[in-house]
Amino acid sequence: MLTAALTVDPAYRVGEVDPRLFGSFVEHMGRCVYTGIFEPGHPTADADGFRGDVADLVRELGVPIVRYPGGNFVSGYRWEDGIGPVDQRPARLDLAWRSIEPNRVGVDEFHRWAATVGTGTMMAVNLGTRGIDAARALVEYCNLASGTYWSDLRRRNGSAQPYGVKVWCLGNEMDGPWQIGHKTAVEYARLAHETGKAMRQVDPSIELVACGSSSLDMPTFGTWESTVLSEAYDVVDYVSMHGYYQQHGDDRDSFLAAATGMDRFIDAVVATADHVRAVGRHRKRIDISFDEWNVWYQSRFAAETNLEVAATPRLIEDVYSVTDAVVVGNLLISLLRHADRVRIGCQAQLVNVIASIMTEPGGPAWRQAIFHPYALTSRHARGTVLQVPVRSPMHETAAFGEVPLLDAVAVAGDDGPVLFAVNRHQHEPMSLDADLRGFGGLTSAAHTALADDDPEAVNDRLHPDRVQPRRLDDPKLDGGRMLAVLPPMSWNMIRLS
Amino acid sequence: MLTAALTVDPAYRVGEVDPRLFGSFVEHMGRCVYTGIFEPGHPTADADGFRGDVADLVRELGVPIVRYPGGNFVSGYRWEDGIGPVDQRPARLDLAWRSIEPNRVGVDEFHRWAATVGTGTMMAVNLGTRGIDAARALVEYCNLASGTYWSDLRRRNGSAQPYGVKVWCLGNEMDGPWQIGHKTAVEYARLAHETGKAMRQVDPSIELVACGSSSLDMPTFGTWESTVLSEAYDVVDYVSMHGYYQQHGDDRDSFLAAATGMDRFIDAVVATADHVRAVGRHRKRIDISFDEWNVWYQSRFAAETNLEVAATPRLIEDVYSVTDAVVVGNLLISLLRHADRVRIGCQAQLVNVIASIMTEPGGPAWRQAIFHPYALTSRHARGTVLQVPVRSPMHETAAFGEVPLLDAVAVAGDDGPVLFAVNRHQHEPMSLDADLRGFGGLTSAAHTALADDDPEAVNDRLHPDRVQPRRLDDPKLDGGRMLAVLPPMSWNMIRLS
Amino acid sequence: MLTAALTVDPAYRVGEVDPRLFGSFVEHMGRCVYTGIFEPGHPTADADGFRGDVADLVRELGVPIVRYPGGNFVSGYRWEDGIGPVDQRPARLDLAWRSIEPNRVGVDEFHRWAATVGTGTMMAVNLGTRGIDAARALVEYCNLASGTYWSDLRRRNGSAQPYGVKVWCLGNEMDGPWQIGHKTAVEYARLAHETGKAMRQVDPSIELVACGSSSLDMPTFGTWESTVLSEAYDVVDYVSMHGYYQQHGDDRDSFLAAATGMDRFIDAVVATADHVRAVGRHRKRIDISFDEWNVWYQSRFAAETNLEVAATPRLIEDVYSVTDAVVVGNLLISLLRHADRVRIGCQAQLVNVIASIMTEPGGPAWRQAIFHPYALTSRHARGTVLQVPVRSPMHETAAFGEVPLLDAVAVAGDDGPVLFAVNRHQHEPMSLDADLRGFGGLTSAAHTALADDDPEAVNDRLHPDRVQPRRLDDPKLDGGRMLAVLPPMSWNMIRLS
Repeated sequence: MLTAALTVDPAYRVGEVDPRLFGSFVEHMGRCVYTGIFEPGHPTADADGFRGDVADLVRELGVPIVRYPGGNFVSGYRWEDGIGPVDQRPARLDLAWRSIEPNRVGVDEFHRWAATVGTGTMMAVNLGTRGIDAARALVEYCNLASGTYWSDLRRRNGSAQPYGVKVWCLGNEMDGPWQIGHKTAVEYARLAHETGKAMRQVDPSIELVACGSSSLDMPTFGTWESTVLSEAYDVVDYVSMHGYYQQHGDDRDSFLAAATGMDRFIDAVVATADHVRAVGRHRKRIDISFDEWNVWYQSRFAAETNLEVAATPRLIEDVYSVTDAVVVGNLLISLLRHADRVRIGCQAQLVNVIASIMTEPGGPAWRQAIFHPYALTSRHARGTVLQVPVRSPMHETAAFGEVPLLDAVAVAGDDGPVLFAVNRHQHEPMSLDADLRGFGGLTSAAHTALADDDPEAVNDRLHPDRVQPRRLDDPKLDGGRMLAVLPPMSWNMIRLS
Repeated sequence: MLTAALTVDPAYRVGEVDPRLFGSFVEHMGRCVYTGIFEPGHPTADADGFRGDVADLVRELGVPIVRYPGGNFVSGYRWEDGIGPVDQRPARLDLAWRSIEPNRVGVDEFHRWAATVGTGTMMAVNLGTRGIDAARALVEYCNLASGTYWSDLRRRNGSAQPYGVKVWCLGNEMDGPWQIGHKTAVEYARLAHETGKAMRQVDPSIELVACGSSSLDMPTFGTWESTVLSEAYDVVDYVSMHGYYQQHGDDRDSFLAAATGMDRFIDAVVATADHVRAVGRHRKRIDISFDEWNVWYQSRFAAETNLEVAATPRLIEDVYSVTDAVVVGNLLISLLRHADRVRIGCQAQLVNVIASIMTEPGGPAWRQAIFHPYALTSRHARGTVLQVPVRSPMHETAAFGEVPLLDAVAVAGDDGPVLFAVNRHQHEPMSLDADLRGFGGLTSAAHTALADDDPEAVNDRLHPDRVQPRRLDDPKLDGGRMLAVLPPMSWNMIRLS
Repeated sequence: MLTAALTVDPAYRVGEVDPRLFGSFVEHMGRCVYTGIFEPGHPTADADGFRGDVADLVRELGVPIVRYPGGNFVSGYRWEDGIGPVDQRPARLDLAWRSIEPNRVGVDEFHRWAATVGTGTMMAVNLGTRGIDAARALVEYCNLASGTYWSDLRRRNGSAQPYGVKVWCLGNEMDGPWQIGHKTAVEYARLAHETGKAMRQVDPSIELVACGSSSLDMPTFGTWESTVLSEAYDVVDYVSMHGYYQQHGDDRDSFLAAATGMDRFIDAVVATADHVRAVGRHRKRIDISFDEWNVWYQSRFAAETNLEVAATPRLIEDVYSVTDAVVVGNLLISLLRHADRVRIGCQAQLVNVIASIMTEPGGPAWRQAIFHPYALTSRHARGTVLQVPVRSPMHETAAFGEVPLLDAVAVAGDDGPVLFAVNRHQHEPMSLDADLRGFGGLTSAAHTALADDDPEAVNDRLHPDRVQPRRLDDPKLDGGRMLAVLPPMSWNMIRLS
């Protein structure tokens, strides 16, 4: 049995949890929208064609904000194609995913769906093939009450009230050579600056996200961010990060330490933003919108350029294992640990496409393994994030060098502190000794874990509940000290009060 | 009475204290060397001409490392002028301080003095008027055993053993237009890179400090550091910081919050170094050598260009008050708080020139007010720095916005934790409630403070002990909780065991 | 048996052979100078301390010009250390090779030695740590008759006649990060331009070599050359090339095709020089000084930074096999094939350091395997280089793709044409059918080959003549057609008359 210890003290605060940390992402890609959230004729569909079974799962998942409509898709998107009478909307060739986009769902339908499931929205504008005019028109369409061309058009299209979209992404992954209308850092910086300025002039209350790097491995990583922020600092509130993680070969130990990679990535972007802030002598601080992240087996995806053009193709419908779920839980711990700077997070994506929720057309919807740590964290990690120094056995990983086997964070909420912890060891349970003296008077501890004898276990249509979190024996609490046992390769939540 | 609280928990570590954090600085400037550390004929002088009374005070001050020989001086210095038979050494016109440099003290005498007072040395090479050749020759002179021209010359000059100078500054304040041979960032980066490379080839065990900005207010701040580090990352170990603080007008509150300015300055340089690290995908981390810092009333200094050429002029012999001493104590708290990244600190300077120690030629030497917090911190802040979150009343300052009235750090050493704390309120005492439960079993607290009814009180030749630290009543310790009272405008050290 | 054919026709001229194509290189490195060409006390040493046995071999090798004194060494060299009374010369720490340089041999001794062995000299100036002044002084010292400080100093030092050094290298490998005082292309271009200008002002008859790339693999290859030539075109006559070749792993076929790599490298530099010529609308053509080339097993050299400081260390004393000798012979074919643009070649180095000649201190000197193709080519490849189109079987190599198994060039001299040919097949002999009708009346063919049943055979102290060229049966000559057989993996010279 491994032994580890940690301390949780309410005096050592990281910051308040921004609920938007638990956001998600709906892109017009594969079956995320069509046969995902939207499937007229489905037994559970509502009058607008939105699947009720999926909506139920989205509500259960706990998604305070959803990014829309892309992703790479947005860089070729004409948003006006998606408004007005449905039967007059064009079918478009989407170059990003080599798909036929029917435009049955557009900005109005999406906001109706969002209201139904009770989530906020954040939107991206097309800076691949379009610019200032299309972007400012979209803000006007969404956020102005009435009396102008675009706001009145929205009203005619059925939405009397503006949508009040607060957060806007200035394009998507514009550093990526695969992007339609890919830009150099300087080109993007100028376009983002001028577009953002005009969007703010339409609605000064909005917040803007500048594209950061599409991944830590981009050759322009770091200089891209500094170039963009140096140029557009004043109009931008957040810089985006995107990060996907997967197991390479049989190196599971490195994969289980993916959160260490996410930590270092975030630290590097924070350093870059603060460097630009210092050089520019800005008072404002740029925070982070980690608006695409997940486990994604990219190595299994044969690149969009090899796709045949199709309508609603099954794209990257990864099926997630217990191992993947433990990593997702740990990535959420990394995001929480940086709650002082990471204000928005969007798991990519919501349904079918590397998603927590899977559906069959005409059939059921179910929770993937990764659904569970996400749902529990979103529900219970509300309040103030606390630093959790750990004293843990270490082990060597090929990707990250020496990493601790225990990773943990805590959130102090109205009902008491909640500890989130991962045991990264594949085979050994871990005895955890937690010093909670700073709280005083804790009397109850409830331990929920996601772990399994079979690390490859998955949920599928026939076994939708094969992988589930389980309630373990209550840890011992004694005078400010708690003793718990974390199963091998497990994600854990211990709620204290 | 103000009330504040803080927590000290040994689980929340910042890093180990590098003793070099308490370094000092001897420049050939004003009376730092001549009639400072060196005065043949003085009643206390040793056979080499070094003052014994000053050496005693240096030992009492506790100075593990001393930077030498400049400062601006080094940028016009020919170090070979300071070796060999004294009567053959040239008198040189020093342009930095418009002084006649007699070259009575050079690298050999300095190292003899350093051995006498028991301090290590760090040296700067001239990158103003000289370059690779003069620098590599100096390293060879200082650090090679024998068998080469320069090492054999050192032996002939009386030092059989090499000096083993570990830390070398690649020039001084090369970003400053006042510097002899001022360089642009690119020019300096290239010269520092190539000079540092050759110096390392002479002695691969040395550590190198690249010049950072001469102050946070330099127009090139931030880009200078990123340019220099981007170019020379591999050969450099530290980037330097210089920071001087003073009271402007009657805004004492801002002055008392100077450590907040130092904190932000350090954070910005760390961000810059880490940004460059991320862009370059380096494993190595660049740390900080804060190798000039102090309170300095620069506004009272009429600029060197207005000086008449003189030998041993009285330059910037600032007399420090209790207020200055409290700020110096607080700046040391800031350095300690960044002990994970700030590895070297050098108070500027050691004797007479904005110094802790003052002398009269032929007369006495004495401790300035700032001597005391420095000496006590150097002696007692050894071990592991701990984070100290404070819950403090805030007040508004013109320079830094809202700042806490309480600033504190703790160091856990062999004899138990030591708390260093400043009450920045000019008039109100502060009741301090400290949560020390993480230690368990503390039974004794000894409280020493530097404070005075007269904030302008100073030490001078006639009243050399007017300002001194005082032992206050022992704070109450009760089950992991300590109650103390910090006098108005005070620097405090509370030793616990 | 492989079959191949070629044509030699005196109408198809490449250009005249510049004898300097067969130059060599003496660097103050390892044992090239000390215990190489110079060893006072050696049984064969002359009054100046130069070894007679080595001098005999140098004369046999046939070296019309020798480059001196470096190489990387020159970038930290103070040439004044090597003149004047020997007992007053300093021992210097050489950073390039981490060696103690005793300065027993300097520019005067070197020229005395060169006169003894009957070779011309070309010299490099230090553009690492020094610049215009040191360079112009050296030209003055070497090339002016008298009446100036430096020329008169040479006369006082014993050389009444100037040395008339015609070719000067503006530094050495200044594009290499390992170089002391490494420069960017722009920095070097400016320094080379101004230094070269001043050197020409001292002696307008000299020719100047600008540094090109240290190898084809340098990341700045191509842009370095274009930057340097664009800036300094008018003062420069040659651009340098350096190329070292070795067998990687067991890929002998690629190694045997090394000359193909050299061909492509030369073609690329010629294209670059001609591009700059066209852009600048220059009439003058820049030619090539391939002033370091050889087989060198760099992968066996543990980098100079890992060397302990030593006097006369045994550095890179590669022992060459028959295979290496065949490749060296083929590299000479490549140089000859480009005789219209490659005017100077220097095999690196002359003695002990990756050298044709080896010595033991106090012991014998002997010829390495590579000595032989070099000596024979230097002696017999004089006159006009002729194109030799070949019809050869091809084979695939990992490094160069498809290459011909036969490589050949011819030189038409006073005694008739000489054919140089390599059979690159490791195991098969090659039947060669040569069309020589263009000459008319050839009646005699003498075939000398370097080949061996053991491709790893070497010469060493105990078996100094193990590897030697052998006279084969005379090829059949019949009415302008010659039939010969080239042994497997062989270098061949066929002299016709």
